[in-house]
Amino acid sequence: MSYFPQVEKIQFEGKGTKNRFAFRHYKADEVVLGKPMKEHLRFAVAYWHTMTQDGSDPFGMPTNERTWIGATEMDTAKNRVEAFFEILEKLGVEYFCFHDIDVAPAGNSIEEFMNNLDEITDLIKVKMDQTGIKLLWNTANMFSHPRFNNGAGSTNDPEVFAYAAAQVKKGLDISKKLGGANYVFWGGREGYETLLNTDMKFEQDNIARLFKMSIAYGEKIGHKPQFLIEPKPKEPSKHQYDFDAATTMAFIKNYGLEGDFKLNLEANHATLAGHTFEHELRVAREYGALGSIDANQGDMLLGWDTDEFPTNVMDVTLAMYEILQNGGIAPGGVNFDAKVRRSSFAMEDLILAHIAGMDTFARGLKVAAKLIEDKFISDLLAERYGKWTNTEIGKSILAGKEDLESLSSYAYKHGDAIELESSHIEYVKSVLNDYVF
Amino acid sequence: MSYFPQVEKIQFEGKGTKNRFAFRHYKADEVVLGKPMKEHLRFAVAYWHTMTQDGSDPFGMPTNERTWIGATEMDTAKNRVEAFFEILEKLGVEYFCFHDIDVAPAGNSIEEFMNNLDEITDLIKVKMDQTGIKLLWNTANMFSHPRFNNGAGSTNDPEVFAYAAAQVKKGLDISKKLGGANYVFWGGREGYETLLNTDMKFEQDNIARLFKMSIAYGEKIGHKPQFLIEPKPKEPSKHQYDFDAATTMAFIKNYGLEGDFKLNLEANHATLAGHTFEHELRVAREYGALGSIDANQGDMLLGWDTDEFPTNVMDVTLAMYEILQNGGIAPGGVNFDAKVRRSSFAMEDLILAHIAGMDTFARGLKVAAKLIEDKFISDLLAERYGKWTNTEIGKSILAGKEDLESLSSYAYKHGDAIELESSHIEYVKSVLNDYVF
Amino acid sequence: MSYFPQVEKIQFEGKGTKNRFAFRHYKADEVVLGKPMKEHLRFAVAYWHTMTQDGSDPFGMPTNERTWIGATEMDTAKNRVEAFFEILEKLGVEYFCFHDIDVAPAGNSIEEFMNNLDEITDLIKVKMDQTGIKLLWNTANMFSHPRFNNGAGSTNDPEVFAYAAAQVKKGLDISKKLGGANYVFWGGREGYETLLNTDMKFEQDNIARLFKMSIAYGEKIGHKPQFLIEPKPKEPSKHQYDFDAATTMAFIKNYGLEGDFKLNLEANHATLAGHTFEHELRVAREYGALGSIDANQGDMLLGWDTDEFPTNVMDVTLAMYEILQNGGIAPGGVNFDAKVRRSSFAMEDLILAHIAGMDTFARGLKVAAKLIEDKFISDLLAERYGKWTNTEIGKSILAGKEDLESLSSYAYKHGDAIELESSHIEYVKSVLNDYVF
Amino acid sequence: MSYFPQVEKIQFEGKGTKNRFAFRHYKADEVVLGKPMKEHLRFAVAYWHTMTQDGSDPFGMPTNERTWIGATEMDTAKNRVEAFFEILEKLGVEYFCFHDIDVAPAGNSIEEFMNNLDEITDLIKVKMDQTGIKLLWNTANMFSHPRFNNGAGSTNDPEVFAYAAAQVKKGLDISKKLGGANYVFWGGREGYETLLNTDMKFEQDNIARLFKMSIAYGEKIGHKPQFLIEPKPKEPSKHQYDFDAATTMAFIKNYGLEGDFKLNLEANHATLAGHTFEHELRVAREYGALGSIDANQGDMLLGWDTDEFPTNVMDVTLAMYEILQNGGIAPGGVNFDAKVRRSSFAMEDLILAHIAGMDTFARGLKVAAKLIEDKFISDLLAERYGKWTNTEIGKSILAGKEDLESLSSYAYKHGDAIELESSHIEYVKSVLNDYVF
Repeated sequence: MSYFPQVEKIQFEGKGTKNRFAFRHYKADEVVLGKPMKEHLRFAVAYWHTMTQDGSDPFGMPTNERTWIGATEMDTAKNRVEAFFEILEKLGVEYFCFHDIDVAPAGNSIEEFMNNLDEITDLIKVKMDQTGIKLLWNTANMFSHPRFNNGAGSTNDPEVFAYAAAQVKKGLDISKKLGGANYVFWGGREGYETLLNTDMKFEQDNIARLFKMSIAYGEKIGHKPQFLIEPKPKEPSKHQYDFDAATTMAFIKNYGLEGDFKLNLEANHATLAGHTFEHELRVAREYGALGSIDANQGDMLLGWDTDEFPTNVMDVTLAMYEILQNGGIAPGGVNFDAKVRRSSFAMEDLILAHIAGMDTFARGLKVAAKLIEDKFISDLLAERYGKWTNTEIGKSILAGKEDLESLSSYAYKHGDAIELESSHIEYVKSVLNDYVF
Repeated sequence: MSYFPQVEKIQFEGKGTKNRFAFRHYKADEVVLGKPMKEHLRFAVAYWHTMTQDGSDPFGMPTNERTWIGATEMDTAKNRVEAFFEILEKLGVEYFCFHDIDVAPAGNSIEEFMNNLDEITDLIKVKMDQTGIKLLWNTANMFSHPRFNNGAGSTNDPEVFAYAAAQVKKGLDISKKLGGANYVFWGGREGYETLLNTDMKFEQDNIARLFKMSIAYGEKIGHKPQFLIEPKPKEPSKHQYDFDAATTMAFIKNYGLEGDFKLNLEANHATLAGHTFEHELRVAREYGALGSIDANQGDMLLGWDTDEFPTNVMDVTLAMYEILQNGGIAPGGVNFDAKVRRSSFAMEDLILAHIAGMDTFARGLKVAAKLIEDKFISDLLAERYGKWTNTEIGKSILAGKEDLESLSSYAYKHGDAIELESSHIEYVKSVLNDYVF
Repeated sequence: MSYFPQVEKIQFEGKGTKNRFAFRHYKADEVVLGKPMKEHLRFAVAYWHTMTQDGSDPFGMPTNERTWIGATEMDTAKNRVEAFFEILEKLGVEYFCFHDIDVAPAGNSIEEFMNNLDEITDLIKVKMDQTGIKLLWNTANMFSHPRFNNGAGSTNDPEVFAYAAAQVKKGLDISKKLGGANYVFWGGREGYETLLNTDMKFEQDNIARLFKMSIAYGEKIGHKPQFLIEPKPKEPSKHQYDFDAATTMAFIKNYGLEGDFKLNLEANHATLAGHTFEHELRVAREYGALGSIDANQGDMLLGWDTDEFPTNVMDVTLAMYEILQNGGIAPGGVNFDAKVRRSSFAMEDLILAHIAGMDTFARGLKVAAKLIEDKFISDLLAERYGKWTNTEIGKSILAGKEDLESLSSYAYKHGDAIELESSHIEYVKSVLNDYVF
Repeated sequence: MSYFPQVEKIQFEGKGTKNRFAFRHYKADEVVLGKPMKEHLRFAVAYWHTMTQDGSDPFGMPTNERTWIGATEMDTAKNRVEAFFEILEKLGVEYFCFHDIDVAPAGNSIEEFMNNLDEITDLIKVKMDQTGIKLLWNTANMFSHPRFNNGAGSTNDPEVFAYAAAQVKKGLDISKKLGGANYVFWGGREGYETLLNTDMKFEQDNIARLFKMSIAYGEKIGHKPQFLIEPKPKEPSKHQYDFDAATTMAFIKNYGLEGDFKLNLEANHATLAGHTFEHELRVAREYGALGSIDANQGDMLLGWDTDEFPTNVMDVTLAMYEILQNGGIAPGGVNFDAKVRRSSFAMEDLILAHIAGMDTFARGLKVAAKLIEDKFISDLLAERYGKWTNTEIGKSILAGKEDLESLSSYAYKHGDAIELESSHIEYVKSVLNDYVF
């Protein structure tokens, strides 16, 4: 049975088309900088927003019309698998991501939950084999259930820690079964409501403990996905420990996790932390830790995670520039951690919204590639930092030949004659517009 | 000559006094937790806000009435030394902090600037010897002059880097001469206007280079102040590399600076970065890097650094709690990086504002001490985390005896019976109020 | 049956008590400025947060333990009435507030919903008669159901408008039956997701239309509660029309609603709009439109409505000062639009949290009264604005005798000799601390 | 003498040009929607940012290289007039705006200041006559001098009020002499530092008093420019009374100023107040009060007024859409209240930055026109609100024939069968991208 009978496989038709169910910019096999678009972008659809999000918000009931709701929770879960792979195939998306509770009902006991997970992921495996679609990453939801009220790795209750460990173990078992490329930790409750009753160091020690157990278990079962931490500054917690990329790098370094962990960065989390998305990508890239991205966008005037489908072409261009400079995002990908607005409640909006996001990233990729081909940014940098490589003093400092005393002597001789160059940044931004628009 | 002839040395008179020039809460020698208040608090007055701030803002001209303006810049500089030590003595403050350009005019050349610095700091040394007042920290202003438009350590121009090096060298020479306990780096321009024209890694490499040169020079001259980095997320730069405590720790670890560098944390910088001040203190404390604090407060509804004198008793209490838990702040101190409001332009406001800040910290210290004496917070923690030490599974995890498999087995047996405890956080906050108010 | 058998009626025991179920500051009959505390404060408990809030958040399932859940929705609804009045009586709170859907299940049709409402509100009336507890205000929930996705008064669908009208009619009928003092409109969906598809003027015309119908209906049935609009800037909508007090006053004036409408102001909504609570109260007060308040507090570092129980004594003091200056809040009141934190999920937390809030307001009231008795603020104002009443030019301007020409002449003569007075604001804040703490 | 000898009059050369001193999008005489671009856009250059801004910021000294600094302040002032008109002519901009102190030195007395103003504005008049360039608006700077510390119209000192009145009188005299189309009030200090010492109502009464005196004086001298208030939420004040468009409309209505006052709206002020620029324009438009705009952009991650030159094409498109829907902006205009970044300190950046801004507005105008020609938005609205005009119930409500009772009856019959339409907003935004990019 089809859940989207009115929708054919989405084709590229170009900017002029009036067909809503067509790509206007994304052409999977179009070669950009020597690689097909789809290999650059490695799009993934997120199970949670696409299959289980219901349109509710803190002040409103569900609005989404979803035709896969069945007689039992397991029926619904199975229908969702069908519908999900239909969406992936119709969009031509080759990767997907999920939390454990997205795909299988929790049932009435941990045992039932784990059995449900086995059953549904077996079904998913069949679909994967049939379609060639791959698992970008999976993860355990360790934030929704009341038991995780005070965290999972960071919980004040060791029994909750054990429960979390059981979920991670199962998550890694599933990852092995499905050939997952990455495994993600997002610590929505790994933080605090108030410092008054929080032992932050103890909690972070325990989070690291859980991570190290996970590395060990992966090694034991002979499956080593790339582990990823997803930073977010707050929400649902008042403060989350993985505030942003740099904070998470401090944690990774502090606990010696550099070899096994990288970052999964989300656009909306970046702005909630006070950064642009490209900033977070740059930080990760320069620490050698850019793992994967959650593609969405926030509303800069709202203080919560809106997880909108990305349509801001400039922002996506700057993100894609960082990804290209990183040599690509593999084994990570571009996962649409995005949900349709509450007023876009129709089934077809799931397709339309992903097309909108994919077209936006296709545009961003093409503009970023052009910026690289034209050396627009690299020329800017070469000129701006030129004195470091074309003056004696610049070269000498970089070569490690100078110290405070020698530089002080230099400054006494030359320091009064320093001349700066204007950045002409307004002109630069104006020309950049001509690339993007 | 006296600049505050109407003001006597400020005495403690208690809460009931109507004398504006009296402490109502701060009693330097009152013993709290076994130490006199003044040893806990190690107050410092900041040269810049107190002596050189003129009341101007981006939309307004100077308003401050200051009676130390002399016929020449050097006259003014000398008058300021007199007036500054008068303020310190009348307040009973034993430490102070300054940037190079706060104390000495830049003159028309680097040589003149350095000579001015020598002359004025000689004068300062005389006053220090006379009064017993000590240098908490000094620093080089490497952000105000146009040459630092694009940074100092992070500059795109190696000649500017050399100039910065000369200032740091002189700063360390002065630190040695005056027996400075700490030396601070605040990188107001060590950041970017736009990533488009910025090589972030190159810039951070160079900042670390400057820091390592500073460590080496300190060793060479046999003077090792505690080096401190002061985080701030933005302003004047659009983005500053030392965004917050955790970001700065990632940097410190990345460049192997842990042994030599700690943090100087400011309340207003914390909130601009999206954190409470106590959060920043906790982060630093848990990294073993709490060096010193800049005491002030921001306005939570304003997006820039207002550097108000601290009068929020609750916030200061929570900050002092962290400091007490840290075993104190020495060799750092509580430096009033705070300026009188533009409408508080009278000379006497400099005294009144410091009294307000010192009284607020005295209150905060006393409440924090009471919280510790009553074990208010430690009891909360002991109860909240009790299961980690009084259950077998908790002890076993902490002892490193468990792995994902053993914990999964445990969860299968016990995971369905987890019971949580309420935090009663509203009650806790209400009782906390009774401590503070 | 009792839902809180372990809790007696809460008594005042004073600051020293260790009894968690006692007031430490609120003493209902203590006379402050000539009136008992309870008449100043007119506390109300909110049905929604207290009875129906379940502890869920956008990333988490319900956590709250609630013993009133029955076999059917109507059983639960009836149990809640019992439990609610038990809470009110045990707290000694004499007012309450509710939305229609808080008290009665929506059923399967509008008719069933309305019948449920009649049945439950009859039950409420019985309890009111038994206890003497009064209805501060009721309102219709016109934001949770999917039909209100695009607003109620502002909907793009006239059938939805009709539905909203039916709810308001019933709300006014209930208000009449229960003797409601006020009737509130909070327009959580009266705003937009994007201006692209929004006719803002048309929507606001229709909101005003609904309000005018409500006035007319109240007149027709001979029941005139004070109508109140509750401003909020955003959430759930991206932008809400009633952004803040001033915006709402512009609307009220634009549609000629001044005679019938005042404002219900909430602390957390104020800060989300970029204002202090006291600012919003002042704005309303000066427009003669301060109707009632929703007592809670937000987290200044979070961008969404946290609706915490108020425990910030300084903020509440400044709010109570505005209320006292307004001559009191009647016929409005102090409604605890506040919810226990997700980790305070026990039944008893409902009692403890209200005690915390009531004690905080009792403190605030007493401090505000002292500020008035001591003329602390009025003396400040009298001195600061003194020149307007004790100089000829001041009096002449206020008397309307001057124009630009006469003032220009005056300025030519006297303008170069203007002398300002310092505000000494740091000192003022420091003394204020001694009142509060 | 020329201040930009290397720059010719800027010509349109189109998108492909490599000439930095050329328009790539703005073609003054190109007809869009029946009018030349220049008549739609009515560009103005701001004297303050272009001629007097020096590149300083709260942490940095001036950086800007400006070749018009003369031997005396009056020499500089005269040079600036020359240079300013050279910029206007080379850019082909036909309007300008200024504060009194931008053009003339304050001298040592009010009399000297006024004489300087007469002399320089006579010179400006000569240039206007020679070039045909016109005055969009002027205003009095009543916020920079210390005397305005506590406001101008809202001051606590009637002598300051008189001084402000003298400046406004002179401003209106100059407006008459130069044929100014508008006269602006921006109340940078008309607000408060703290409510504790502020009588908000008294202050607002006095601001209105000053405005009414201004209307009266304009009538007396037979010169009636459009009076404009420019809202801004904060900075330099902690809170400014004219917070945003809606707040200012409440004020205008409260004091009966609708006939004479409209709004001058700025993009960066909008976002500081928590709104998009198009929101502010819409609010003003719907109140019939859209007067003029200050074209710039802020940084959404920074909490202060950055006044960047506008380069965000999407934002400018949405702004231009509002302006076109308003029937144009005349007698207002598009004033570049924008300053070059501190690192763009060269003389030529003044030209380059204005070209960037003008090209961005030209793009925005053309896209907005296309949206109107294609009825992209109007069709969206017609469909979305269609039920109001094509159903009986919709028409009947709009015709005023319904009341709560009739609508309640309607809802009982039809309310259970309401069906909503999806907004497909992701698709809409995606198509909008194809217009813009």
